Amino acid sequence: METTTNRTYPQIISPSSLLEHWQGHRRVTRRVIEAFPEDAFFNHTIGGMRAFSKMVMELLAIAEPGLKEIVNGKPEVFDEEFKHDNTKATFLKLWDDSTEAINTYWTQIKLEQFQETVTLFGQYEGTVYSQILYFIDNEIHHRAQAYVYLRSLGIEPPLFYVRD
Amino acid sequence: METTTNRTYPQIISPSSLLEHWQGHRRVTRRVIEAFPEDAFFNHTIGGMRAFSKMVMELLAIAEPGLKEIVNGKPEVFDEEFKHDNTKATFLKLWDDSTEAINTYWTQIKLEQFQETVTLFGQYEGTVYSQILYFIDNEIHHRAQAYVYLRSLGIEPPLFYVRD
Repeated sequence: METTTNRTYPQIISPSSLLEHWQGHRRVTRRVIEAFPEDAFFNHTIGGMRAFSKMVMELLAIAEPGLKEIVNGKPEVFDEEFKHDNTKATFLKLWDDSTEAINTYWTQIKLEQFQETVTLFGQYEGTVYSQILYFIDNEIHHRAQAYVYLRSLGIEPPLFYVRD
Repeated sequence: METTTNRTYPQIISPSSLLEHWQGHRRVTRRVIEAFPEDAFFNHTIGGMRAFSKMVMELLAIAEPGLKEIVNGKPEVFDEEFKHDNTKATFLKLWDDSTEAINTYWTQIKLEQFQETVTLFGQYEGTVYSQILYFIDNEIHHRAQAYVYLRSLGIEPPLFYVRD
């Protein structure tokens, strides 16, 4: 329930619950990164697809910069080129930094904004809620591909439904 | 925006938009089923995982029965055993039937219900919104695994971001 000045009213989901939903998924994705052997994270592929490290770069390039643009209204550049040393530890550090940044930016989104239309990264137009659902869905999508990569390596992936 | 008797107020997402979001994903999943060669849909696997037909049975066993239980409050049995002829055409027919049923059940969910806690299939406890997000997320998850299956077969999957 959300509170306005004079009453409460029902919502499908509150902003804080949607953030928690997203961060729950991000915790799973973090565990998937951790589950990869160092080398396979950067090199293992199936059917000509990208290594999971490349997909994670995409996720890093979308989540924090996308949310930042929603909050600040200033165009962000979509940049999935990795400019750091290629270690899982670095990726996990960048992941954790984004997690914190997302928590901070989130508090700056007003409830009224979620149904406003914005254009992100100079080309993706849609409502704020649809942009955020896309961030989450796209993360689930690529992480699930990493589940297949892990299975093909004989590694048991983290449980999909454990989000804490 | 949702309308109450005396005012409108902001929502993250309206019930009709959440349904459209889900049905958009369901259209993508339908195209992924269609993209599989008949035999591979039932037999192709990677790393000891299930064939995509088995995953689709799970999706069919969750979506319509789960929503039906949310609406009717009567316990449903989780049954992912396939009792029909094993053809893609039959799966697509079941998929389309579920799509229609979901549209019908959806109109019977009151906005006030989404944050109520329910137990589905006799064991899964959570708010109605979290149950529905789980249905959607789980579909994205398994469909993404089918993307890898298709790529490993040299088949270009449907575009993830085209939902119409």
